[in-house]
Amino acid sequence: MNNAVSIADQIVGAISTVVGVGPVALHEPTFTGNEWKYLKECLDSTFVSSVGEFVDRFERDLAGYTSSKYAIAVVNGTAALHISLLLAGVKPLDEVLVPALTFVATANAVAYCGAMPHFVDSETATLGVDAAKLREYLSAATQQRSELCVNRATGQTIRAMIPMHTYGHPVDLDGLLDVARDFNIVLIEDAAESLGSFYHGQHTGTFGLLGTLSFNGNKTITTGGGGAILTNDAALAKRAKHLTTTARVPHEWEFRHDEVGYNYRMPNLNAALGCAQIEQLPTLLTRKRELFARYSAAFAGVKGARLMREPADCQSNYWLQTVLLDEELGDEREAVLKATNTAGLATRPTWTLMSDLLPFAQSPKMDLSCAQSLARRIINIPSSPNLSEARQ
Amino acid sequence: MNNAVSIADQIVGAISTVVGVGPVALHEPTFTGNEWKYLKECLDSTFVSSVGEFVDRFERDLAGYTSSKYAIAVVNGTAALHISLLLAGVKPLDEVLVPALTFVATANAVAYCGAMPHFVDSETATLGVDAAKLREYLSAATQQRSELCVNRATGQTIRAMIPMHTYGHPVDLDGLLDVARDFNIVLIEDAAESLGSFYHGQHTGTFGLLGTLSFNGNKTITTGGGGAILTNDAALAKRAKHLTTTARVPHEWEFRHDEVGYNYRMPNLNAALGCAQIEQLPTLLTRKRELFARYSAAFAGVKGARLMREPADCQSNYWLQTVLLDEELGDEREAVLKATNTAGLATRPTWTLMSDLLPFAQSPKMDLSCAQSLARRIINIPSSPNLSEARQ
Repeated sequence: MNNAVSIADQIVGAISTVVGVGPVALHEPTFTGNEWKYLKECLDSTFVSSVGEFVDRFERDLAGYTSSKYAIAVVNGTAALHISLLLAGVKPLDEVLVPALTFVATANAVAYCGAMPHFVDSETATLGVDAAKLREYLSAATQQRSELCVNRATGQTIRAMIPMHTYGHPVDLDGLLDVARDFNIVLIEDAAESLGSFYHGQHTGTFGLLGTLSFNGNKTITTGGGGAILTNDAALAKRAKHLTTTARVPHEWEFRHDEVGYNYRMPNLNAALGCAQIEQLPTLLTRKRELFARYSAAFAGVKGARLMREPADCQSNYWLQTVLLDEELGDEREAVLKATNTAGLATRPTWTLMSDLLPFAQSPKMDLSCAQSLARRIINIPSSPNLSEARQ
Repeated sequence: MNNAVSIADQIVGAISTVVGVGPVALHEPTFTGNEWKYLKECLDSTFVSSVGEFVDRFERDLAGYTSSKYAIAVVNGTAALHISLLLAGVKPLDEVLVPALTFVATANAVAYCGAMPHFVDSETATLGVDAAKLREYLSAATQQRSELCVNRATGQTIRAMIPMHTYGHPVDLDGLLDVARDFNIVLIEDAAESLGSFYHGQHTGTFGLLGTLSFNGNKTITTGGGGAILTNDAALAKRAKHLTTTARVPHEWEFRHDEVGYNYRMPNLNAALGCAQIEQLPTLLTRKRELFARYSAAFAGVKGARLMREPADCQSNYWLQTVLLDEELGDEREAVLKATNTAGLATRPTWTLMSDLLPFAQSPKMDLSCAQSLARRIINIPSSPNLSEARQ
């Protein structure tokens, strides 16, 4: 490869080698299974709303696939996070550790509880929270009081942490579970992007007290809009169902609600789509892995950028294929985004860091130098499973 | 009719005359139009999620049908209420006037804002908020301070009121709009139950600053789960769309959010169902009106109960047909519910009054004697549009 070729042109070339000519979307859903059949069955049953066979079945399918004891289907991943935080005991004014590098839903869910996100740094190996750096930070910045982790600067309790499995790559769970235990912090996994990703052979989202999934249209499988809460705790599962169904006390006809609840139940119509999609999941994961292999070959010759691969001992779902520009090429990101999108190859940068968003400008944060570097260098490239075979 | 026949047996008889033998549901959706066609089109387009043609079209259809300038489609009626309250400027510790006689979503949405529901009484003619009684109460219990209505007892601002059109019967809007104006209180209409209901020829939900609709599975038309915000104010409509789509600032690829937003957008899949359903709405309303006429004849001979009919100068959608037991027969309600449900004729009481629910036990309230009486006497009877012709 000629050194004179710009990084933008190199990346356009590498992507084109794999996916052919544009327009190519960043991530499209694939409906090649029983999607029509189940939607029709759902419509014919007239049970399209908050009660029905598909929503119960989808929950069983999710629990089965992830080997989680319980799965509770909800309207979206944000709702799953919100309820999980409430179940973890997060109260107004509490702080919750959130990666600065995440989708805004993680931080918003904390705000819905009246709590404050407290932003933490990521590591390059996983794109997720850096456990070692977090331990060092918490050792200096917090103290234990009555078995609670208290932020010395604010005096507030750091009640929970929500590491996120970025683009499907499992975070350093061993390291974070140790930190959570040592500092008395509840660990909730934001597994919105990592259905089909495994850490040391165990499905992501099943390590913490609770885990959350998303089935938004851009995810590996979709229900239109949808999410789920995973937990192995029977009491939490029961409360999750209760809180997401308006906290109505079961009765043949009486309407009585014993706490402030939420209208978060996944409709049966959306679950019908989910039941068909989860049947396709192994195939979709294989295709996404094949796509990674083809990109991997194409990017081998690119100077100045590398393709993100799954962490050691982990299996990523490769939800969004990710290119990481070299440090010194961070300033080229806009040029790469412009060149690729102009060529009809949909790409995007990572999220603006949560700590740089207006609504969270006052939130506490640790040193975020790695996240800041990653935020300048990450580019997501076309990742649909149907791109696993070259188009023309 | 023999006086010795119990009210329970009389009501079982009257319902059976109209709907035949059970099992008959309380309210089932009817899918006899383009439901399947549009769902297939949606699936084929691959746009099943938060972006797509159906969700934009459904919003246009709703605005057109209701003659509201703007309609914003969301995941459910609860979300519509939550966002409407935020748009009305409801802040933590504010109070919001809510009928004690309503579905729990109305009060929950207030709680989501950190505000306090303040429960008000209903009148028998509409089953909705009693404007005259409310005026008298506010005159005594509040004072104006800097053009705000302040509760003398709590010192908090009564920022908004959310009258609800109970079972589709329009509330006394003229009276309430006057109260809202005179006391500087924002009026939001909870029209969750009243799509197709008109007050003095104008669609419910279009009188207040904002109005909310629901398309839950039990409603006149359904999207599985869904709701909408109605408003004639361009700026509020724009902010409603912004807040319900994670407050993301439009940009070709950048992810930037300028306030705490919500993941409340109605998925395109659900909107596809809605587009087919709203085409059927005039037919469904005709059938529900026919069902009312048939019940009306059947209940003419029932001693001790009467069928709820639309208020003067109003057109009700007759969402849930409602029987009102005479005052002295309130104690028979459980017997009626038992007899009807045992006979396979699904009936239910009205909601437990909000003021009697544990989460709202500390909320301020006015004298609720009418709502208390109604709560003992209301029974909803089978109301599906497909019951308009006798079954066998």
